[in-house]
Amino acid sequence: MSQNNSYDNNNVFAKILRGELPCFKIYEDDYSLAFMDIMPQAKGHALVIPKFAAETLLEIPADMLAHTMTTVQKVMSAQKTTLGVEGVVLMQLNGKDAGQTVPHLHFHLIPEHLANLKGHSAEKGDMEQIKALAEQISQVL
Amino acid sequence: MSQNNSYDNNNVFAKILRGELPCFKIYEDDYSLAFMDIMPQAKGHALVIPKFAAETLLEIPADMLAHTMTTVQKVMSAQKTTLGVEGVVLMQLNGKDAGQTVPHLHFHLIPEHLANLKGHSAEKGDMEQIKALAEQISQVL
Repeated sequence: MSQNNSYDNNNVFAKILRGELPCFKIYEDDYSLAFMDIMPQAKGHALVIPKFAAETLLEIPADMLAHTMTTVQKVMSAQKTTLGVEGVVLMQLNGKDAGQTVPHLHFHLIPEHLANLKGHSAEKGDMEQIKALAEQISQVL
Repeated sequence: MSQNNSYDNNNVFAKILRGELPCFKIYEDDYSLAFMDIMPQAKGHALVIPKFAAETLLEIPADMLAHTMTTVQKVMSAQKTTLGVEGVVLMQLNGKDAGQTVPHLHFHLIPEHLANLKGHSAEKGDMEQIKALAEQISQVL
């Protein structure tokens, strides 16, 4: 993975990218990885991250970001198909001051109305349900 | 502007793109337009939209999305510089069921902590302040 100076190599998503921590993976290609958020703000909450050492949206080159956004589109489409929902909230927090908790650029894809979201990074979900949803969503990707 | 079948040509952002409605513009290029949200969820709340007739993230081609995301990066950087903030929330609602109110793809860039945001599309802001912020932000773009 490419590197910039201020990036923390020991953040949880860097460890997931290196295979040092597990995740409920739903999609992977050369440029990006998608997996389930284990503290879901709604059923089916997924994350998309670039395979690039960026903390926020401002540290990623345009071409890497473009690849990542293509994955965001794919995962959103798969969530709609699999979960039978029509609405998906895309959220991406830049910096601790915005509420970012893991310092690796990540896009939240939450298939629920904005008004109904549970708190961000608030509570662990049901691991069995999350695993089952990951299998469902990954099957159409 | 390109067109797809279900897109509503009379939505407010389509009218802004055609120059039929005014906006507090902060940036424009061949592919995208950025302007202030007049119902700000925090001071400096800006919007970035593609010059492409897409309702959600799923109707825009990858290359147009890539151009739009480059503008998102530029505007976010300008907000940080101008407002002296470190945190910016990126939010993008897909479909009425997610809370989307204007059916033209738009990215919210809100320079505030997620926990402190005012309601979405809830209350008109102070137009004089918004105009002044637009001038400040556009000067570094």
